[in-house]
Amino acid sequence: MTTIIDGKQLAKALNAQTKTRVAALAAQGKVPGLAVIIVGTDPASELYVRSKHRKAGQLGINSIVRQLPATISQADLLAVVRAYNVDPTIHGILVQSPLPNGLDETAVINAIDPGKDVDGFHPVNVGRLFKNLPGHYPVSCTPRGIMTMLESLQTPLRGKHAVVVGRSNIVGRPMAAMLLNADMSVTITHKYGSNLRALTTTADVLVVATGVTHLIKEADVKPGAIVIDVGMDRDADGKLTGDVDFDAVFDKVHAISPVPGGVGPMTIATLMRQTVDLCEWSDELGNE
Amino acid sequence: MTTIIDGKQLAKALNAQTKTRVAALAAQGKVPGLAVIIVGTDPASELYVRSKHRKAGQLGINSIVRQLPATISQADLLAVVRAYNVDPTIHGILVQSPLPNGLDETAVINAIDPGKDVDGFHPVNVGRLFKNLPGHYPVSCTPRGIMTMLESLQTPLRGKHAVVVGRSNIVGRPMAAMLLNADMSVTITHKYGSNLRALTTTADVLVVATGVTHLIKEADVKPGAIVIDVGMDRDADGKLTGDVDFDAVFDKVHAISPVPGGVGPMTIATLMRQTVDLCEWSDELGNE
Repeated sequence: MTTIIDGKQLAKALNAQTKTRVAALAAQGKVPGLAVIIVGTDPASELYVRSKHRKAGQLGINSIVRQLPATISQADLLAVVRAYNVDPTIHGILVQSPLPNGLDETAVINAIDPGKDVDGFHPVNVGRLFKNLPGHYPVSCTPRGIMTMLESLQTPLRGKHAVVVGRSNIVGRPMAAMLLNADMSVTITHKYGSNLRALTTTADVLVVATGVTHLIKEADVKPGAIVIDVGMDRDADGKLTGDVDFDAVFDKVHAISPVPGGVGPMTIATLMRQTVDLCEWSDELGNE
Repeated sequence: MTTIIDGKQLAKALNAQTKTRVAALAAQGKVPGLAVIIVGTDPASELYVRSKHRKAGQLGINSIVRQLPATISQADLLAVVRAYNVDPTIHGILVQSPLPNGLDETAVINAIDPGKDVDGFHPVNVGRLFKNLPGHYPVSCTPRGIMTMLESLQTPLRGKHAVVVGRSNIVGRPMAAMLLNADMSVTITHKYGSNLRALTTTADVLVVATGVTHLIKEADVKPGAIVIDVGMDRDADGKLTGDVDFDAVFDKVHAISPVPGGVGPMTIATLMRQTVDLCEWSDELGNE
């Protein structure tokens, strides 16, 4: 029997935990604060930001959405980030990607206080993760959410082989680091990789984050694999679907996450969790 | 015909370039400065430090060896590092590993100014590498030297499959990042990985950094592979050898680096190169 990894249910459970933690902080007079900066009027970005804002409100997190015009200068945008860096009511700062042309996203991410880097994109936090350093630091939310999904299966990961398709800084690379830190052998491949199937068919855990609709077919998976689909694609009818042909691989695998209702809800739930983490860690991180 | 990747010759050529760059800097009144901090009296560490010091002197780099007692406190060691951070004659700071028990190596590395982090071990530099950020920053010297060795073969790497055995922060992890950034598919495995041979026999480029003498035998390599041996092991007779059984795999592979005379000399040459890089970059890095 194939297990459907129900991201919606897992996110619900995680959000319930987060809500409890927020209440415990409230009893100490602390309210986790999340500042979401959105530049311009990209409709997809606005949708994401609204979802985050709504979820934060439901959990008792103080969410501030800072809408800035697409014409803002780099210097003014950096000044907004820096103001949140020193605002004691804000524990997590997130700059919605992509930024309009002409703005330097790397420089903006680098300007975020690493102790408030709720997306885990600052190089120092990426470096801590890739070095597997102990201690508290934020990491990228999508792969962190996927680790929670994998843990829910209670399948030992150590020594097994994970294959990650896609090497973005948001998903593929930090995902590979987390799976490596979980003592898996890890392969990371991408658009330049030749012979994709030869790699994916050796994967005990396969994570696909390419944006290519139904890239992964039945012949691309190992029998009994765990498959995580990070795709958010549209099929020919405009229906939301993933990078994995779910119906085709379903009977062959041990477990699979659907799209929608898989990675998506877990990413937002993990963002909320990490905002609360940063609030809890704020004293120690402030001492760095 | 199998190519022996002659690290000694490549290091000689690289050192000659470095010497020329040092001379060009001298004409501008600049002398690259390297501070090597060694704590305690580990004989292997003392040997490494002497080699680095000697090579720096030969190339015209101002090398300072700072020998500190094993009894030094963490606070005093950090104070030494911080003094070099603000010393304008020093462009590269290196703390010889391992530190005696009781000293926190991570904290010491984190205290090094990232712009003087000649070993490339600071999390912010590791993060830049793993994110494949543009711009100038130091990276770990052993894998950087290996990239130079691979480039010397003039074999296209893009799309090919690299396997890295060993996941240390000094070699395996940064090596995987560099090969990924060179558009290879990359697998990283380690002592917990099961079925090592199934992975290594798919490698177009195989980098072995385990410290296990002759771990890799003839049956572990793909015909025509490029094999890089990072081992510095002793065989039963006490002779220096590698993680790869050189004689056994020689006829099967396209190219292989020997031990000694392979990765070792390239690591020191790359350290020298990177000291000069940091001197050349010092104005821009100082502005971060």
